[in-house]
Amino acid sequence: MTSNVTPAKIAIVMGSKSDWATMQFAADVLTTLNIPFHVEIVSAHRTPDKLFSFAEQASANGLDVIIAGAGGAAHLPGMIAAKTLVPVLGVPVQSAALSGVDSLYSIVQMPRGIPVGTLAIGKAGAANAALLAAQILALHDKPIALALAQWRQAQTEEVLNNPDPREEA
Amino acid sequence: MTSNVTPAKIAIVMGSKSDWATMQFAADVLTTLNIPFHVEIVSAHRTPDKLFSFAEQASANGLDVIIAGAGGAAHLPGMIAAKTLVPVLGVPVQSAALSGVDSLYSIVQMPRGIPVGTLAIGKAGAANAALLAAQILALHDKPIALALAQWRQAQTEEVLNNPDPREEA
Amino acid sequence: MTSNVTPAKIAIVMGSKSDWATMQFAADVLTTLNIPFHVEIVSAHRTPDKLFSFAEQASANGLDVIIAGAGGAAHLPGMIAAKTLVPVLGVPVQSAALSGVDSLYSIVQMPRGIPVGTLAIGKAGAANAALLAAQILALHDKPIALALAQWRQAQTEEVLNNPDPREEA
Amino acid sequence: MTSNVTPAKIAIVMGSKSDWATMQFAADVLTTLNIPFHVEIVSAHRTPDKLFSFAEQASANGLDVIIAGAGGAAHLPGMIAAKTLVPVLGVPVQSAALSGVDSLYSIVQMPRGIPVGTLAIGKAGAANAALLAAQILALHDKPIALALAQWRQAQTEEVLNNPDPREEA
Amino acid sequence: MTSNVTPAKIAIVMGSKSDWATMQFAADVLTTLNIPFHVEIVSAHRTPDKLFSFAEQASANGLDVIIAGAGGAAHLPGMIAAKTLVPVLGVPVQSAALSGVDSLYSIVQMPRGIPVGTLAIGKAGAANAALLAAQILALHDKPIALALAQWRQAQTEEVLNNPDPREEA
Amino acid sequence: MTSNVTPAKIAIVMGSKSDWATMQFAADVLTTLNIPFHVEIVSAHRTPDKLFSFAEQASANGLDVIIAGAGGAAHLPGMIAAKTLVPVLGVPVQSAALSGVDSLYSIVQMPRGIPVGTLAIGKAGAANAALLAAQILALHDKPIALALAQWRQAQTEEVLNNPDPREEA
Amino acid sequence: MTSNVTPAKIAIVMGSKSDWATMQFAADVLTTLNIPFHVEIVSAHRTPDKLFSFAEQASANGLDVIIAGAGGAAHLPGMIAAKTLVPVLGVPVQSAALSGVDSLYSIVQMPRGIPVGTLAIGKAGAANAALLAAQILALHDKPIALALAQWRQAQTEEVLNNPDPREEA
Amino acid sequence: MTSNVTPAKIAIVMGSKSDWATMQFAADVLTTLNIPFHVEIVSAHRTPDKLFSFAEQASANGLDVIIAGAGGAAHLPGMIAAKTLVPVLGVPVQSAALSGVDSLYSIVQMPRGIPVGTLAIGKAGAANAALLAAQILALHDKPIALALAQWRQAQTEEVLNNPDPREEA
Repeated sequence: MTSNVTPAKIAIVMGSKSDWATMQFAADVLTTLNIPFHVEIVSAHRTPDKLFSFAEQASANGLDVIIAGAGGAAHLPGMIAAKTLVPVLGVPVQSAALSGVDSLYSIVQMPRGIPVGTLAIGKAGAANAALLAAQILALHDKPIALALAQWRQAQTEEVLNNPDPREEA
Repeated sequence: MTSNVTPAKIAIVMGSKSDWATMQFAADVLTTLNIPFHVEIVSAHRTPDKLFSFAEQASANGLDVIIAGAGGAAHLPGMIAAKTLVPVLGVPVQSAALSGVDSLYSIVQMPRGIPVGTLAIGKAGAANAALLAAQILALHDKPIALALAQWRQAQTEEVLNNPDPREEA
Repeated sequence: MTSNVTPAKIAIVMGSKSDWATMQFAADVLTTLNIPFHVEIVSAHRTPDKLFSFAEQASANGLDVIIAGAGGAAHLPGMIAAKTLVPVLGVPVQSAALSGVDSLYSIVQMPRGIPVGTLAIGKAGAANAALLAAQILALHDKPIALALAQWRQAQTEEVLNNPDPREEA
Repeated sequence: MTSNVTPAKIAIVMGSKSDWATMQFAADVLTTLNIPFHVEIVSAHRTPDKLFSFAEQASANGLDVIIAGAGGAAHLPGMIAAKTLVPVLGVPVQSAALSGVDSLYSIVQMPRGIPVGTLAIGKAGAANAALLAAQILALHDKPIALALAQWRQAQTEEVLNNPDPREEA
Repeated sequence: MTSNVTPAKIAIVMGSKSDWATMQFAADVLTTLNIPFHVEIVSAHRTPDKLFSFAEQASANGLDVIIAGAGGAAHLPGMIAAKTLVPVLGVPVQSAALSGVDSLYSIVQMPRGIPVGTLAIGKAGAANAALLAAQILALHDKPIALALAQWRQAQTEEVLNNPDPREEA
Repeated sequence: MTSNVTPAKIAIVMGSKSDWATMQFAADVLTTLNIPFHVEIVSAHRTPDKLFSFAEQASANGLDVIIAGAGGAAHLPGMIAAKTLVPVLGVPVQSAALSGVDSLYSIVQMPRGIPVGTLAIGKAGAANAALLAAQILALHDKPIALALAQWRQAQTEEVLNNPDPREEA
Repeated sequence: MTSNVTPAKIAIVMGSKSDWATMQFAADVLTTLNIPFHVEIVSAHRTPDKLFSFAEQASANGLDVIIAGAGGAAHLPGMIAAKTLVPVLGVPVQSAALSGVDSLYSIVQMPRGIPVGTLAIGKAGAANAALLAAQILALHDKPIALALAQWRQAQTEEVLNNPDPREEA
Repeated sequence: MTSNVTPAKIAIVMGSKSDWATMQFAADVLTTLNIPFHVEIVSAHRTPDKLFSFAEQASANGLDVIIAGAGGAAHLPGMIAAKTLVPVLGVPVQSAALSGVDSLYSIVQMPRGIPVGTLAIGKAGAANAALLAAQILALHDKPIALALAQWRQAQTEEVLNNPDPREEA
């Protein structure tokens, strides 16, 4: 996996180790697209000071997009967004009791003034956060734009080439 | 109103001016019980640094309970709780689209390690946060204990003395 | 486990034996913090008289905080709160059909006049009820305050020392 | 209105005066059916002792059905049911923030052992609680059975006689 | 099991064979209380004519209470209630996708005019439907009243005799 | 309005007069498309026998599509569908407490064997039920197919001709 | 299985291969009724151009009904409906986090102008989509009408012949 | 208002004229930040071909971010995203019956492969979509970065300068 390369323009952060089972799908997409990224556990509730220093230095550290995953009262994406102007994408991790509805509401219902671009609950959301981050980078990065176009073309062709759901893959 | 007295043991904070329509019911109860309190707007998203300094100094400033009201992606109570050991009581403010379910989930679904004692959505929750704060102070404050006992006795008698819902009050 | 010591300042009560799978996480935290506690089954619906006598004697028995866990139409925390001025913390136990949303609403949506400080659904909520109870005791108990500060510091360091989610613990 | 007649076999109780706007629809139905009833405010949280004495004496006082209306963390029907074998019918009153979903869950999700027969949220539920109570009395009361049969026949004919929704009533 | 005895005063009906896994808990309670009952599959959607004839003959067949369990768009309890004045108790069966919330709403949200006394989702609701049916019969049946009182006393004592959740049963 | 013409191929039925405020949007669409239709109140709960005779005769009466609107425990569409092979389209009417979620679940969650094609909650759903009914008729009716094509073309052009949301209509 | 016959009047399309586990229940019903059908994966998001060409040619290809299954942000049924006047029936596939509530809302809540007849979440909905499609064809196809009548009669008799849920099938 | 300037890098599109009441808050923010933008009604369901041509030409037309607002079965953002690699931000418009929960789920629950960065329901979400779009542009546009920094600083100071919620603004 291509990761923690310097200087990475994308960081994937999450509230706890258990979120990695979800957030690795973001890492996988970035790896496939050959985009370096940084991965780190930053807990809003257990390490609030680290959250602040991470967010305050995000721009200076060269980050262009921050992908933040969290579950339950998922404050991580919103609090990072409150401390930086680097775009923040939030991934609601599926929670035990409420299936991620709590995570989704805590991330997406930000008040006017501090935005978090929110993706779907769980693995699909993690993968899509990586794709959206790549689309943002691609606005000024031709190789990423090309990689993305190829990735999407391959995705389309995979469906077109396997039109019958009854056949074995 | 008896407020912002020094040294107040209870602070009522909220994310925006509009939350006062809800949180004043906490202030009213404390005023009735003759308990000094401090009131201030502290926004998790618009003034994150103030949130941190407020929480870091809460214990040194003599606070015994912090009542925090917020709506939507209501990060204020949980982020204060992450920065202090002073007990934090959270009041979910009723929100425009989701009626406060988002506020409730964002406040109550805190992860293991950082507790927020959460009250009901809206005005009843605000009043009850003040009562619970008073009950906490009353453990070591006889006058407050007495005031609380009288308050609750009066509440009971009001119901007992007006048993017929069809009569005008 | 250090429990049922006399005189305990914290009681952990629950509606049925099956709630212990959740509420033991409250007991574990108190044990770790070296705080004595009392554990007992008190069912609002099957033993309402016991509920009343328990609540009426709570203050005289030296209790400073009552942690009450219940699921479904979880009336236990609210009915205890109606019969005592000792602070009550409620833990919504995850239910079979509604995943604890019913438990949460039944506990948190108390009317103006009788507060219950509500924690998250399930195990995290049980652990946090114990932490919040300890924070309340810590206001007038230096050893508990110290134990809490150390507990939280250890929690923070555990995250700081393991920043990469991809490594084995 | 024919009410508080002795001996009434049906009691309509509610948690607060404001619930009367809903519960009067139960009273109206009983009045129409010429069935005496008793009306009283009994608050689970503000007058728990009255709740207990009311429920304990329900059978001795000749009650055959208790209709209990409550909103929010609506503990009244379930706690009455826990203290008597007289059938209890619960009416979830529509609440401010959660539209009565909290009331509904708190009333209907009773644990095995203590039943509450729950009706619809709001006015329709109040009217139907009265109808169901009448159906229970009618099992051993011919005049009520006759009144019910006539009431329902009239209801059917009103629809049959006005089949076109576009006409003015 | 004592069942399908003539003349049974209680019928347990359900929409499909798979509902028996839930509804047998109603049968078990009635068996324990020594109350005869009738059990039958009556599907609102697959056998609507049978539903109508069952409901039309319910009173003549000596039924005093009908317990109806159904899942999903659970029309069975309400449609039986529309065709008889015998009290109908509804049990929402837990459904695959929506966990019985659909069943609950379809049963409890009856319009003004046709009541269904609704119990909790799933097994607890089935058992409680039987208890509530027994409470209705007990109004005019001393042996059932006695059996119910003993059942409830035993239930209370079981809790009182096992107050510590940490002990093995 | 062109309605109650003989022989109409489409019937619009609803549970109560108050549903007309919603269902008239179905009538308006059919009128615009110049398709005759029949309108009638048929209440599942207040006139179950009428419901059955209506459904049993639907095919013989020449109906090709039945549009049924109902709110709350909305049993009308499903019970009609259980008694006929004429396609039934269900419109969930917005309800007082639950905003039509109860209506939606009661209509759409039909068990395997008896289908109801369900449209959106409220006025949009009523209009769309009429459009879908027209699309079904159009399979074998050229004038209706032409009217539908023109209707949709006009709808598209209205949007295309007014692309700026800031201009007055 | 009788499928992909030319010319099929019914198409079963779905967003991904994994939807087949649900949609095969539609295919099974059509096979049982001896109705030819076409099956194909058409993804709104991964193959939008194919979706458009499929929908544009639906009528010319002889389709009378399109059954479309999708999960999550299930845009497939609605977007097909926007591009054709052939009736579209939508099947919400049960999703991982939200159990198909997201799928249901995305399919059923279509705006005025473009209808999708929506069935239940999951397998029952897939089977019922096939039945409703058959009912539409049966309006002008006697053999299908006969097959449907027999199918439904058999369904009724299966219930009538097995009235006791306690017996083994 | 500065809008429809050529070449605008941001487009604000919406499904219907009525969405402008929400989406104008996005326009207001961009105007305040002095960022040109394009505004247009593009309906997924009523003008699907326009949607496709808009999305296909988005990149060539110089768009760097597309803000799409829609309500109900809100397919607009996701279908645009399926046809372009330009980043798409989705704004769930508050709907009549379901308060925008349907809009939110339809926009945010996109499957793996096609991302939509989703903002809060309603006006706050519209404003935040504009802010997030500006943050994306600011990565390569110093004046926008400066304007954003000033905007946020002003927002913070407004709160800091008005700390008492009880004072008139």
